[in-house]
Amino acid sequence: MNNALGGSAVYASLACSLFSNAGIVGVVGSDFPKKHLDLLKSKGIDISGIEIKKGGKTFHWKGEYGADLNVAKTIKTDLNVLTGFNPVLSDEFRKADFLFLGNITPELQLSVLSQMEKRPKLVVADTMNLWIETRREKVLEVVKAVDIALMNDAEARQLFQTTNLVKAAQQILRLDSEVAIIKKGEHGSLMFTKDSHFACPGYPLENVKDPTGSGDSFGGALIGYLAKTADFSHANMRKAIVYASCIASFNAEDFSVNRLKEISDADVEARFSQFHEFVRF
Amino acid sequence: MNNALGGSAVYASLACSLFSNAGIVGVVGSDFPKKHLDLLKSKGIDISGIEIKKGGKTFHWKGEYGADLNVAKTIKTDLNVLTGFNPVLSDEFRKADFLFLGNITPELQLSVLSQMEKRPKLVVADTMNLWIETRREKVLEVVKAVDIALMNDAEARQLFQTTNLVKAAQQILRLDSEVAIIKKGEHGSLMFTKDSHFACPGYPLENVKDPTGSGDSFGGALIGYLAKTADFSHANMRKAIVYASCIASFNAEDFSVNRLKEISDADVEARFSQFHEFVRF
Repeated sequence: MNNALGGSAVYASLACSLFSNAGIVGVVGSDFPKKHLDLLKSKGIDISGIEIKKGGKTFHWKGEYGADLNVAKTIKTDLNVLTGFNPVLSDEFRKADFLFLGNITPELQLSVLSQMEKRPKLVVADTMNLWIETRREKVLEVVKAVDIALMNDAEARQLFQTTNLVKAAQQILRLDSEVAIIKKGEHGSLMFTKDSHFACPGYPLENVKDPTGSGDSFGGALIGYLAKTADFSHANMRKAIVYASCIASFNAEDFSVNRLKEISDADVEARFSQFHEFVRF
Repeated sequence: MNNALGGSAVYASLACSLFSNAGIVGVVGSDFPKKHLDLLKSKGIDISGIEIKKGGKTFHWKGEYGADLNVAKTIKTDLNVLTGFNPVLSDEFRKADFLFLGNITPELQLSVLSQMEKRPKLVVADTMNLWIETRREKVLEVVKAVDIALMNDAEARQLFQTTNLVKAAQQILRLDSEVAIIKKGEHGSLMFTKDSHFACPGYPLENVKDPTGSGDSFGGALIGYLAKTADFSHANMRKAIVYASCIASFNAEDFSVNRLKEISDADVEARFSQFHEFVRF
């Protein structure tokens, strides 16, 4: 699929909007189709934080998935307008109670966090292998600074230089974090706290069309559900993870945001109920 | 660990003996230490089906685990007395109600099955990548002939030439099987039936010493629990899978059968309860 709408912030905000109001901060080029902005607006997403750089070209990623759909292979990344991007939050955005720091350099994640007028009620950050390889110390700073550092199993193993996910999770918890959440693609996700463990299965998808953005969808849905319920108990975190898994699995059912933009509350609730059935014994 | 007690049948029968009476059929050389036979006997395992080949050397496998503890790399396999092994069941064993066909050539698995006086109440078979590579059609025959064909995720993907486990499971179900169980190592296991799906998480082991035999332990515990309860409903199958996961995780906590030979019913029940806690939401 060529030039499909994508990007961490787009997936995350669409996923978030299924549960809660979302605002988006980012940059696109003047080549960015108006219909994409209209789609985001139609979902109630505040797009005032999207900077449209005149004459600039939108960030473009081209990748492919091999046999293992959990791992994307990057063919080409054109940073374009992302080069030199330095987000400045509006006064309104600085007051936000919930902050999702999508996948961007850890320096920019810390910069956005530092612009907040007061500490948000909840800060969730995502990361990726590229930053762990090139800026490991800064990524660790982000993990320490936020409430929930989301990473997938490969990233957790890489960041903490261990093959054992339980050990990696304990490292996350030691970095001043109350919960460690590790995403495992088709194998679901895990949450560790000091004294509890939660395992959420993957949704058994027979046809995975495109897993791009599923991690971002997971993050957006997670913070969206937590913002909606304003309940950060471990019990509610478990529910948030199951909702996040539902949305991530919907996202993989079609290319780009095609599935995310059409699912209804009823679709989400139906899938959530299925998870109860999957784990019952 | 050198010359540690092992082998599919040993792991499976020790795991089975935690729930039910077990008998073992196999062959060893006269180098096989008597203390190993004594251990099996002390667990109430009927070892009358173990043939001791005079002057023969016991089968020996040497392998190693890299970063990914789900995948063993074979360094050396000495078939020794397994060469030309052709098990002939005793009259008593031919009457067994429950049959576990451990990892051996599919031809021998079918031969053992054909020796049964009547169709057992339940036949479970294991397999491995080597047979799928070299005797794929025969492995498919075994899958068709037995009630539960156990395989791990890599084997299922390889056998049905698909990366998608849901599709692989449907192929198993199409081969005249009521349930498809796919083991996923640290990621737990899945059961598919025509109209239901069960996901059992992996036990979060911080220290995996040696996963050798965990798959066999899973199989032995599964059939042991089903033999004990004689209830093949899907609800009870789910319980059997959770018990099997408990035993498989215990096995990985120490080398050889060191952990299997010491765990108590109370250990097993305590771990079983933890699984309830892991999946609750």
